[in-house]
Amino acid sequence: MGTKFTLESLNSLPLPAFSAAVGDVFEHAGWVADAAFGHRPFPTVAALHEAMMGVVRASPPDRQLAFIRAHPELGSRVKRLDITADSQAEQGSLGLDRLSDAEFNTFTGLNAAYQEKFGIPFIICVRRHTRDSILKEFARRLQNDTEAERKAALDEIALITRLRLVGKVDGPGRPATDGRLSTHVLDNVSGKPAQGVKVTLYEVGASARSLLAETMTNADGRTDRPLIAGEPLRIGSYELNFAVADYFAASGAAQSDPAFLDVVPIRFSIAEPEGHYHVPLLVTPWSYATYRGS
Amino acid sequence: MGTKFTLESLNSLPLPAFSAAVGDVFEHAGWVADAAFGHRPFPTVAALHEAMMGVVRASPPDRQLAFIRAHPELGSRVKRLDITADSQAEQGSLGLDRLSDAEFNTFTGLNAAYQEKFGIPFIICVRRHTRDSILKEFARRLQNDTEAERKAALDEIALITRLRLVGKVDGPGRPATDGRLSTHVLDNVSGKPAQGVKVTLYEVGASARSLLAETMTNADGRTDRPLIAGEPLRIGSYELNFAVADYFAASGAAQSDPAFLDVVPIRFSIAEPEGHYHVPLLVTPWSYATYRGS
Amino acid sequence: MGTKFTLESLNSLPLPAFSAAVGDVFEHAGWVADAAFGHRPFPTVAALHEAMMGVVRASPPDRQLAFIRAHPELGSRVKRLDITADSQAEQGSLGLDRLSDAEFNTFTGLNAAYQEKFGIPFIICVRRHTRDSILKEFARRLQNDTEAERKAALDEIALITRLRLVGKVDGPGRPATDGRLSTHVLDNVSGKPAQGVKVTLYEVGASARSLLAETMTNADGRTDRPLIAGEPLRIGSYELNFAVADYFAASGAAQSDPAFLDVVPIRFSIAEPEGHYHVPLLVTPWSYATYRGS
Amino acid sequence: MGTKFTLESLNSLPLPAFSAAVGDVFEHAGWVADAAFGHRPFPTVAALHEAMMGVVRASPPDRQLAFIRAHPELGSRVKRLDITADSQAEQGSLGLDRLSDAEFNTFTGLNAAYQEKFGIPFIICVRRHTRDSILKEFARRLQNDTEAERKAALDEIALITRLRLVGKVDGPGRPATDGRLSTHVLDNVSGKPAQGVKVTLYEVGASARSLLAETMTNADGRTDRPLIAGEPLRIGSYELNFAVADYFAASGAAQSDPAFLDVVPIRFSIAEPEGHYHVPLLVTPWSYATYRGS
Repeated sequence: MGTKFTLESLNSLPLPAFSAAVGDVFEHAGWVADAAFGHRPFPTVAALHEAMMGVVRASPPDRQLAFIRAHPELGSRVKRLDITADSQAEQGSLGLDRLSDAEFNTFTGLNAAYQEKFGIPFIICVRRHTRDSILKEFARRLQNDTEAERKAALDEIALITRLRLVGKVDGPGRPATDGRLSTHVLDNVSGKPAQGVKVTLYEVGASARSLLAETMTNADGRTDRPLIAGEPLRIGSYELNFAVADYFAASGAAQSDPAFLDVVPIRFSIAEPEGHYHVPLLVTPWSYATYRGS
Repeated sequence: MGTKFTLESLNSLPLPAFSAAVGDVFEHAGWVADAAFGHRPFPTVAALHEAMMGVVRASPPDRQLAFIRAHPELGSRVKRLDITADSQAEQGSLGLDRLSDAEFNTFTGLNAAYQEKFGIPFIICVRRHTRDSILKEFARRLQNDTEAERKAALDEIALITRLRLVGKVDGPGRPATDGRLSTHVLDNVSGKPAQGVKVTLYEVGASARSLLAETMTNADGRTDRPLIAGEPLRIGSYELNFAVADYFAASGAAQSDPAFLDVVPIRFSIAEPEGHYHVPLLVTPWSYATYRGS
Repeated sequence: MGTKFTLESLNSLPLPAFSAAVGDVFEHAGWVADAAFGHRPFPTVAALHEAMMGVVRASPPDRQLAFIRAHPELGSRVKRLDITADSQAEQGSLGLDRLSDAEFNTFTGLNAAYQEKFGIPFIICVRRHTRDSILKEFARRLQNDTEAERKAALDEIALITRLRLVGKVDGPGRPATDGRLSTHVLDNVSGKPAQGVKVTLYEVGASARSLLAETMTNADGRTDRPLIAGEPLRIGSYELNFAVADYFAASGAAQSDPAFLDVVPIRFSIAEPEGHYHVPLLVTPWSYATYRGS
Repeated sequence: MGTKFTLESLNSLPLPAFSAAVGDVFEHAGWVADAAFGHRPFPTVAALHEAMMGVVRASPPDRQLAFIRAHPELGSRVKRLDITADSQAEQGSLGLDRLSDAEFNTFTGLNAAYQEKFGIPFIICVRRHTRDSILKEFARRLQNDTEAERKAALDEIALITRLRLVGKVDGPGRPATDGRLSTHVLDNVSGKPAQGVKVTLYEVGASARSLLAETMTNADGRTDRPLIAGEPLRIGSYELNFAVADYFAASGAAQSDPAFLDVVPIRFSIAEPEGHYHVPLLVTPWSYATYRGS
């Protein structure tokens, strides 16, 4: 994303430089930054973002509608080249370009129904979602009335632009947009952290699963880095696999043949993209427990 | 299997009727029952079986070898029609007739190598095994020397014939050939058994998984019948699935959206076909524990 | 308690014999049985009890009040000799005769205040209570108004007499008056029931604790008999102690010196005298879990 | 303890100043520091300590014995005024001055037997022990032969002086002499850290228990400071109490009356004074689990 601006420097820039710096946070709508400029100085990054969203929310209905309509249609293969670089990266990481036929048809159907009902593109902050949760939200929001959905679209735009702004501006009061997923393996036979347990993390979609991380536990029974960090967690379903039979074979704990527990799967869903999900495993060759920790 | 004989009645039958009754326990080897007849009366069903195996083990090497060779070759599609009714049922329940190409090739290769090395068919008590454990045993036993493998074949014949005899004869001292798999779901939010949790049990093979049972927990948090009972448990890998999000939605416990835990998978292996595996689930919307119980 | 009557025989007795049989279920009030006699035949033991309580509840206020007043005053050392044999046994097992000075003073004060406010003795089914829960109930019910407390006294009489009747009469529809307390110890290192764990059960009172049971776990990790059964569980606080360090020393599991876990205390309260409390222990030398099971 | 010296400054001091600085680390034995002076410069604090102990271990038997004999007799009330300031602080925190009569008699008996057998005072690093573990060690070491016990005394002196040196000198390679005891409470009903749980920590001695800490869990379910830190953990038995019924009453979780779990006691022993003991609680109103974590 290149070098970031500091909030301090943004506060001291003249209008043209200010708009050049943060204007593209709102796609095809440089007027948002222009109007927000008048609210300087911004004490926090959050305040800058709120000022920009305030401009959008206070704009006349026609302008607001045109602004919403200028967003790319999600899932439209034809229109993918139209969108800004940021939006492309967002869709790429989600895998909307690799839908199953059934999912593609569902998507296309939802898109058509949505356009027909609301006359705007379906807008969602894809960096906070998995493919499956997008489909679920799509179906859910199709039940909204026009006013509620106009509000939903603006709320998602707020989430999208907050992420973009945080990617461009450093400074005090930066909104917390990153989530964190971590784990910890305790060996209840030895009373010690389990070192050397192979841990794999999958995103579990309706039509596919994909490997997100593969690592080993260290001397503290943790992974050297969080399994996910530095970005929002995507709402969706996940599975952690812990290769405990191999670990206990190495540690010398007695196991049956085949081992009662070989690879332990923990399947869970994430609902809070900005939250901390700590999902530990307390394990012996014959028992285990897990929980949402902190 | 039709009406069973009582041990008492067997003890009082004349030779021809005795042999007609239990002669086919040992395939193509009516001489085993004939010779065991002399050891009457049998105080227990186990003693009857030991007497029959004693005849086999005491027979001259040539006869023993011919006896072993008369067993059907496992996995040979061509020879499946040759085997006795009991053997067919055993293979049918295992799914050796639905191998993947890779497994079929592995099987064929192991079979050829085994024949080449030992000159006898590979004998295993399939009712105590899954397809995967048979392949694993096949590869393991191929490393035996001739004497060890001759012994292994007789040991498996003992397990096979013990099961057949138990299917034919009632009486005191009947060997315990049945295993049992059961579960129990405790709701740690309410401190009560979790009633109405959908439980499914799968056999998890290397190339396929198959549904073995689908049921609901009752008012005591258990299933009305054990998940498996009345037969040996097959050595292999299994997965229990518990639909806990649906349960907690019905019970009114607070969950996130999507629920942190939806369907909880417990994957475990069985190593003792005649054992009792109790695999309970202690669960809240945010935590669970399992263990091998009793 | 001597031989029990069957409900069938009670249903066929003439009035004098009927009253002789069950008249003393209601202390100093033979008229209750006499009037209930007219409602024969009783299909269930519960129906017999309801008929008797119906007589009490339908009796004129004066008679009802006199009936209540004829009950012995709980905790009055002076009056202890006045009460019927059943009441004495009930107090004996509770230990109201071994109060600390402070408790005795509290009791005496509550008694005086209760008499002053309600003009009746404080009635409670002591067989469903510990000393501590009686004091707690005493203080709570002192807040009642006269009508609510009259009702509370009758409800307790119903519980008292139900227990007495169940002690005298066998037959269909016998009310469930017994509770059950059980335990189970699972060794999560070996995946087997923990055999030979010393288990002790204490009642934990405010001023004293008393040993209720001392036993060892058997091959199934359970105690040969439930820790409490065949009577109501007393509402109150308890502690189970499990000597796990000794068990693991015998089983050969690795422990620190001194062992991280020596005697594991599980402290819990019982709120449902007729309930089943299963309080298991899942344990390794470094971890344990417990829960209300079933 | 006043200002600490840096290792760097010690390395550059002349002999008299060096000995004045660290001479009293070894009681009544200024010659130890004097001789260690020759081994300068010390790359680490550990190296300085090893050099000093090397002087002791290399000294002639007579001098070594006199050195050992100059240590104060533990538990001697008469001699308590004789010892150096450091030793007094050590005994004070242990409570050897508040023994029960039985313990005092045991102590006196052990002391006499020890003097008789070994002719030296019993030396132990009391800051790593509780009263109970000292008595246990006393009885155990009395079984040693003279040579083993001479070695044990020197090993304890090494532990004592290591602690003193670490209290006086800062610098690289400082030996890790501190342990840590921490806890964490997770509410498995809400899937969140349990905030506002009252936690108390007791030392559990044979004849008494003493309150060591009383605190509340914070928003992360932890205590603001570790329960013990900045010193060695004392080998011995402890109990953590968690007031979970009060917590769940505040959180709104459904409980019975009285609550199944009120104050949860976790009793455990510490065997490694320099270790980290993390003893968490995973809890619902009907279940809990604990384990040695990390």
